[in-house]
Amino acid sequence: MLYFDNAATSAPIPQAFDFACKYIESFYNPSALYSKGIEVSSFISEARAFLASSFCAPGYECIFTSGGTEADNTAVFYAKRGNAVITSGEHSAVYEPFRALGARGVETRYAKLSADGSVNVADLLSLIDDKTSFVSVVHVNNETGAVNDVNAIAEQVKKINHKTVFHSDGVQAFGKIPFRLSRFVDAYSVSAHKIGGLKGTGALFKSGTLALHPLIYGGGQENGLRSGTENVFGIAAFYRAATERLHSVKDNYERVKRVKNAFVSVLDRENIEIVSGENASPYIVCLTAPGLKGEVLQHMLEEQGVIVGTGAACASRHRHSRILKECGYSERQLEGVLRVSFSPETKETEAAFCAEKINGAVASLKKVIR
Amino acid sequence: MLYFDNAATSAPIPQAFDFACKYIESFYNPSALYSKGIEVSSFISEARAFLASSFCAPGYECIFTSGGTEADNTAVFYAKRGNAVITSGEHSAVYEPFRALGARGVETRYAKLSADGSVNVADLLSLIDDKTSFVSVVHVNNETGAVNDVNAIAEQVKKINHKTVFHSDGVQAFGKIPFRLSRFVDAYSVSAHKIGGLKGTGALFKSGTLALHPLIYGGGQENGLRSGTENVFGIAAFYRAATERLHSVKDNYERVKRVKNAFVSVLDRENIEIVSGENASPYIVCLTAPGLKGEVLQHMLEEQGVIVGTGAACASRHRHSRILKECGYSERQLEGVLRVSFSPETKETEAAFCAEKINGAVASLKKVIR
Repeated sequence: MLYFDNAATSAPIPQAFDFACKYIESFYNPSALYSKGIEVSSFISEARAFLASSFCAPGYECIFTSGGTEADNTAVFYAKRGNAVITSGEHSAVYEPFRALGARGVETRYAKLSADGSVNVADLLSLIDDKTSFVSVVHVNNETGAVNDVNAIAEQVKKINHKTVFHSDGVQAFGKIPFRLSRFVDAYSVSAHKIGGLKGTGALFKSGTLALHPLIYGGGQENGLRSGTENVFGIAAFYRAATERLHSVKDNYERVKRVKNAFVSVLDRENIEIVSGENASPYIVCLTAPGLKGEVLQHMLEEQGVIVGTGAACASRHRHSRILKECGYSERQLEGVLRVSFSPETKETEAAFCAEKINGAVASLKKVIR
Repeated sequence: MLYFDNAATSAPIPQAFDFACKYIESFYNPSALYSKGIEVSSFISEARAFLASSFCAPGYECIFTSGGTEADNTAVFYAKRGNAVITSGEHSAVYEPFRALGARGVETRYAKLSADGSVNVADLLSLIDDKTSFVSVVHVNNETGAVNDVNAIAEQVKKINHKTVFHSDGVQAFGKIPFRLSRFVDAYSVSAHKIGGLKGTGALFKSGTLALHPLIYGGGQENGLRSGTENVFGIAAFYRAATERLHSVKDNYERVKRVKNAFVSVLDRENIEIVSGENASPYIVCLTAPGLKGEVLQHMLEEQGVIVGTGAACASRHRHSRILKECGYSERQLEGVLRVSFSPETKETEAAFCAEKINGAVASLKKVIR
């Protein structure tokens, strides 16, 4: 099987897994006071410090969580008063807690999207006022790959209201887009399993001065912000995978750009429209075969050994993509959506092969339904 | 090293780890609609159904969480009105969210403990009234091993107020104490890494009719109660470990009883007091060498290749145990606490060796401080 759904989840990097296995042997509780426990705890502190210093402006902390979703929820529930603003292009891990926030009495505002899925920055800024306590803007849209310049947007938001806390969901950006978090972004969520770590681990990078409230209370781990015995195995795999991906982020970005080009150049543009914009992350190509059913195409492709997505895996319970609807796509276009997403390991020839298979599937399905 | 801190965390069972490795190969997102994703999702459903049916009365569900702490928090934050009751012997994973609940306007009530750390049932029942929305009673106390008969207590609570939701933290009981959840207990928290699974996975067993609210919102996984891509590797290891432990729970219980007896029979009862009661879980022996410092004894023992605890690992930030203080122990007794906890793999000879080493450490420390 050739796998092109890396935005949903990616294969664990073998070195990351092997590295983590050390903590199957050294399984001790990091809160324990004997030296075996302290060794594990020291490793976690080192991983935390390394990740924060590799990715953020000085003075940032890394809080390990059970994944991107928990990190997003922790940030969103910061807002307790006034109004809060997100984009209509947020992943459900921001969108759904934000709706819950609305039910808790915070006024919720949604900024509009452009056709490529990026936020309309002017619209976003028009929603910020002196009562805005929280803003969240996804860094890379998980369906279209649209990149929002979150450092710049955060700076503009702070000019309107310097007390507003700015968060970004960086799950599809971290380790993929060459980027360093500026001091204007107060909190930033990432996930391990999107970059070759394991499901069940993520992190929230946060400014040292941001006073978040915990979602989960207990033994006081993660500096009191996230209680529960640390998922040492998951943290170790995440640390190793992130080290790998951050180190090669520029090279990988250029390589995946070539992979995307190889894919797009083969694609039958008469029958297939590309939804992703020119400046999208090269890791994600959203396309549509209007009038055809994406799910049927997906199954046809799987039978030929090619795995692609039909949009966000997490949204698979819903018929059509909420985000693409917001972008203004028609019913016929929404129906035929496929998401093809690459990893740094994807080869150009594989991507071209995938495009050929998509062309073929689209052509045969068109014949059948005629 | 010989390890006697299994109540803090236990070594992963090799078969559980090996089984989970299948999902490193089959790393697909369980929410994905292609067959590789559906296979993973089916496995999770099977694991869920197997665990619920192996452990609970009919009609119960198993919600996978990031651990016992998250499961406890999910249950505790059910309470939104009236008053809520817990015991003074709760683990911080119940105790701390319960305190947060108090700050949110729910009246919080605490039931007293007996000297062995079990709840004073009469006191607990006296706190229940027609406004009690939630009660939580730990099944096995994590410091003393005291067992509360939660099925019977829950039945009595329901007689006073049948609308009260009854929860129990079963982290130190699940897979260790022969037990099946009755229909009087509405929710029950468990943790994987205490029974040979991995840190970062747990579950909340809940009655099918209990309408819990999610702590974490997003893609709607775990029947909408716990969003975020499932920690498939952790769930697989947990499932396999739990299968193993539930299958042998009675045999292991009898074996560990003999291990405990071997330990206790060697212990120098002139200088060491046993805090755990006669009916405590055999997996946990809490003891104290009054007037000596537990932490110093712990280090002396570690130098001789014996790892023991000094109480709850999660409470290691605090000087003295909140729970043992509640039990009425003196300053001198609190100072000298050690917790020795076994696994089904502990041998009687190892336990006897541990007791000898404790006797020796106590004797030499006594000499030094005289």
